[in-house]
Amino acid sequence: MNDRFLRACRREPVDCTPVWFMRQAGRYLPEYQEVRTGHGILEVCKTPGLAVEVTLQPVRRFEVDAAIIFADILLPLEPMGLSLEFAAGEGPVIANPIRTAADVAALKPVRPQDDLGFVLESIGQARSALAGQVPLIGFAGAPFTLASYAIEGGSSRNYVETKRLMYGDPETWHSLMGRLADTVAAFLAAQVAAGAQAVQLFDSWVGALSPDDYAEYAYPYTQRIFAALADCGVPRIHFGTGATTLLPLMANAGCDVVGLDWRVHLDEGWTHAGHDKAVQGNLDPVVLFAPDHEIERRVLDIVKRADGRPGHIFNLGHGILPATPPEAVGFVTDLVHRATRRDG
Amino acid sequence: MNDRFLRACRREPVDCTPVWFMRQAGRYLPEYQEVRTGHGILEVCKTPGLAVEVTLQPVRRFEVDAAIIFADILLPLEPMGLSLEFAAGEGPVIANPIRTAADVAALKPVRPQDDLGFVLESIGQARSALAGQVPLIGFAGAPFTLASYAIEGGSSRNYVETKRLMYGDPETWHSLMGRLADTVAAFLAAQVAAGAQAVQLFDSWVGALSPDDYAEYAYPYTQRIFAALADCGVPRIHFGTGATTLLPLMANAGCDVVGLDWRVHLDEGWTHAGHDKAVQGNLDPVVLFAPDHEIERRVLDIVKRADGRPGHIFNLGHGILPATPPEAVGFVTDLVHRATRRDG
Repeated sequence: MNDRFLRACRREPVDCTPVWFMRQAGRYLPEYQEVRTGHGILEVCKTPGLAVEVTLQPVRRFEVDAAIIFADILLPLEPMGLSLEFAAGEGPVIANPIRTAADVAALKPVRPQDDLGFVLESIGQARSALAGQVPLIGFAGAPFTLASYAIEGGSSRNYVETKRLMYGDPETWHSLMGRLADTVAAFLAAQVAAGAQAVQLFDSWVGALSPDDYAEYAYPYTQRIFAALADCGVPRIHFGTGATTLLPLMANAGCDVVGLDWRVHLDEGWTHAGHDKAVQGNLDPVVLFAPDHEIERRVLDIVKRADGRPGHIFNLGHGILPATPPEAVGFVTDLVHRATRRDG
Repeated sequence: MNDRFLRACRREPVDCTPVWFMRQAGRYLPEYQEVRTGHGILEVCKTPGLAVEVTLQPVRRFEVDAAIIFADILLPLEPMGLSLEFAAGEGPVIANPIRTAADVAALKPVRPQDDLGFVLESIGQARSALAGQVPLIGFAGAPFTLASYAIEGGSSRNYVETKRLMYGDPETWHSLMGRLADTVAAFLAAQVAAGAQAVQLFDSWVGALSPDDYAEYAYPYTQRIFAALADCGVPRIHFGTGATTLLPLMANAGCDVVGLDWRVHLDEGWTHAGHDKAVQGNLDPVVLFAPDHEIERRVLDIVKRADGRPGHIFNLGHGILPATPPEAVGFVTDLVHRATRRDG
């Protein structure tokens, strides 16, 4: 089995730097587009046969060192009582967003085995299908990012409603965040029990918060999730974007690996996170649209900044964009492996 | 004349910390909405009588320490040959975005006196109308932010086309940025000649760039603009968002004042910028939607972090949002003045 991803998560020596890509199973792949013809994104998530197929696609096409189960961070919001839809070409839409204490009180508890069993089933099937070729990553959205979708009713630019609730009715905010944390912790534990060999917590939009607001309104819930997973035996990855000033706290939340975006040099980000953590990142996803020599220059800079220190997992600083040329993904994968190969 | 804003820009002692708000003339004010009834945003910009009226509105209503001329950062793109429109409720739309070397070659040189004379006329009239009550700020968009609109054709989330041009055709990129820099430098110099007593360069979206890309593709052009204004005799403010990792370079570009957003503590941001610069910021604009006691807590924290050091101008970390309660703007203004008042 190729275990260099798991070894790097634990900061153990590796034969070469492991590589995977956030959203590596996605719209940029023609074979994914083919599966999606006639199947909505939620339908793919809820049909293990389809979810496993798209999970495997990038592993078949590229020499990536990990698979990530195909799912969506917003899936747990549906069994909580929110109505989730993906309009064609648009992002997610929640028709009944959370705005009041009564909305939070009406949220239903989630039992992952029953309510999100399709994800767990997909994980089991994907593990079998992978047959040890590469490890399988499970994942969930972090409470702040989930709350922002649940409150705004979709994606947002300024997070006005989210922060308005946070500042104006902290009791309701903390109640919502507690429910989300418990849901996510149980869901990730169930994913590990189903076979996930690492878990990533996506706090994609947490960079909208000031450091003090992060510490007060988001951090305790993320910490609660990682604490609940402390004995689960698999590496825990913590990822955000635009979060350079939050990195020391994010690293301290109980994770093993800190995800970095491209706004910070890898070596500086690693210093902020602490060298007792592994780091994952941090190529700008738009670099994949560049000519090969420009891609190469940037990839080699990241590799150089990792400086051979155990614990670097190469990845983008955010998910692969839909119009990305697939060849660029293969080019980066092979380049990282070649450039970091140890002798012997 | 109330000159505490200008004194703070020069890091001279002040009787209390000056306050103004980015986009203080805007949709959150009922009297602005009234002017806008029947007048498009470009029409207001191009009609000095209307532009001066909305410029003065926040000065009449609040004890702010500066006025900023009402205009839009995209105005210079029109005489360059781009078609600029503001769709109702939407952001700006450019129907003929720049994508090729030929598009850049076709751009027309801008003569501020002729092509943007309405802004200069508004500045002259606003200075007369203000009659020394508070200083008047002129402004322009920085080349990167202007280029991103010109290339994407509007606002953007991932800046794919912008970076694709930057990485894929650097010669065309540098040619475009050179033209934008020359246009902006001439426009800001003309604004100063017309009466602007300080200038702010808005590089609002520069936080999308990695530090190395900023250094290579954006910084030289911003530096060129500030160098051209070195002898103009008015303070030069440099503002971006999500740009914490770029602050040392942004401060070094030749400005007198560095704008900070809320993602960094004011004292840390000031350290990054250097204490030989003044700083402006840095309240999260969404805090204005919070109850007074929450606003107060955050305002006083910022004031405390400024630590009485000369050279702090209180502002938001980005522009006032359209749904902001106007009372909150007055509350913050008065609170900052009261909390920072020197004895004697």
